[in-house]
Amino acid sequence: MDRIPLEKKVLSENDRVAARLRDRFREHGILCLNLISSPGAGKTTLLELTLGRLPKEARVAVLTGDIQTDNDARRLARFGFPARQITTGGACHLDARMVERALADWQLENLDLLIIENVGNLVCPSSYDLGEAAKIVLLSVPEGEDKPLKYPAIFLKSELLVLNKIDLLPYVSFDMARAREHARSIHPGMEILEVSCTTGEGLDQWIQWIKKRGEILRAETAKLPTLGR
Amino acid sequence: MDRIPLEKKVLSENDRVAARLRDRFREHGILCLNLISSPGAGKTTLLELTLGRLPKEARVAVLTGDIQTDNDARRLARFGFPARQITTGGACHLDARMVERALADWQLENLDLLIIENVGNLVCPSSYDLGEAAKIVLLSVPEGEDKPLKYPAIFLKSELLVLNKIDLLPYVSFDMARAREHARSIHPGMEILEVSCTTGEGLDQWIQWIKKRGEILRAETAKLPTLGR
Repeated sequence: MDRIPLEKKVLSENDRVAARLRDRFREHGILCLNLISSPGAGKTTLLELTLGRLPKEARVAVLTGDIQTDNDARRLARFGFPARQITTGGACHLDARMVERALADWQLENLDLLIIENVGNLVCPSSYDLGEAAKIVLLSVPEGEDKPLKYPAIFLKSELLVLNKIDLLPYVSFDMARAREHARSIHPGMEILEVSCTTGEGLDQWIQWIKKRGEILRAETAKLPTLGR
Repeated sequence: MDRIPLEKKVLSENDRVAARLRDRFREHGILCLNLISSPGAGKTTLLELTLGRLPKEARVAVLTGDIQTDNDARRLARFGFPARQITTGGACHLDARMVERALADWQLENLDLLIIENVGNLVCPSSYDLGEAAKIVLLSVPEGEDKPLKYPAIFLKSELLVLNKIDLLPYVSFDMARAREHARSIHPGMEILEVSCTTGEGLDQWIQWIKKRGEILRAETAKLPTLGR
């Protein structure tokens, strides 16, 4: 109870920093995506496959949040694109200030796409704007199709739902139609992709989604009177 | 940053309420278990199978935490034991006050075992003592064997690790020996059980673990000068 006023203050301070980041991303025409899921839903593996499919000359970078280790950044750095770990040291989410600090010495004018992999947590990251153009929620099939109903905030705030690990559908009880229905009962226009990082199914559509989203962002940015490149 | 002093205050207030709960549980010889995992790791299903295997006369109750729905309590109530939902309305963990409120009108002298199913979150619930005798962490095989390293707090604080969904081992890359090694590198004496709620494998050992843990608690309680039944 005592926590609410301070939480509001922390969030409005976060919103100010996030707005500053969003302006910078727009100024440089950078598509920033904030990837959120439960622990182990497959964010890092999806990013590995994404980076592996991009041309070497793509102007992409990755920030990856983790409570304790830098395993993920090391996994992602192997693809030759800039990858930096934000170790939160216990905190259950990334906040805008952490992102701002991590970007302090980066040349943003050299980027078109920045993917932020949040801490594995389906709850807290949904409250913290990182200046992204879009939040993306990953839900893996073994987690069950009820998750949109039980963790509605992140499904409401995400533009895209990536249903991951569809190769496990034969081995678990997961009703794909109901999962889609639950997600859209929370967020009626939500885009949904089905993906398997094991078989590669759906990855082309995922890459296409990112490209299309970047074009939408740059079209919007070009129209802004004070921004544009 | 501004958050730390208040967070400390909230936690020490929580600790006071948790200590009060712990005294009440001991007074009545109740084994209280706090079950924590990522969303979709299988807490509710494990509890369904647990309640289904207990004799009708067992003096058991369940509290189940959820952000939004009361699905879990409805699933668990079917077994005829008292089951109550704590809907946190957005909060990412249960705290001791929520548990105290939920127990306000229960006759604790009629209970031997209280299982609390926490909100699906591998991070925040680890900071909140609920007065339990033991925390138990569930990790499901599809989440990957690196989770103890990435989310060390909950593995350090839990007495028991339940490795769930072992029926999926043939279909995912999960190295059981490394999972155990990682867990014990964080928490050397940690007990570990392997379970499948689909095949029933390991459930007898799990029920045995609960029984043994209850006996340990009651033996300890009997020795306490001011408590004991």
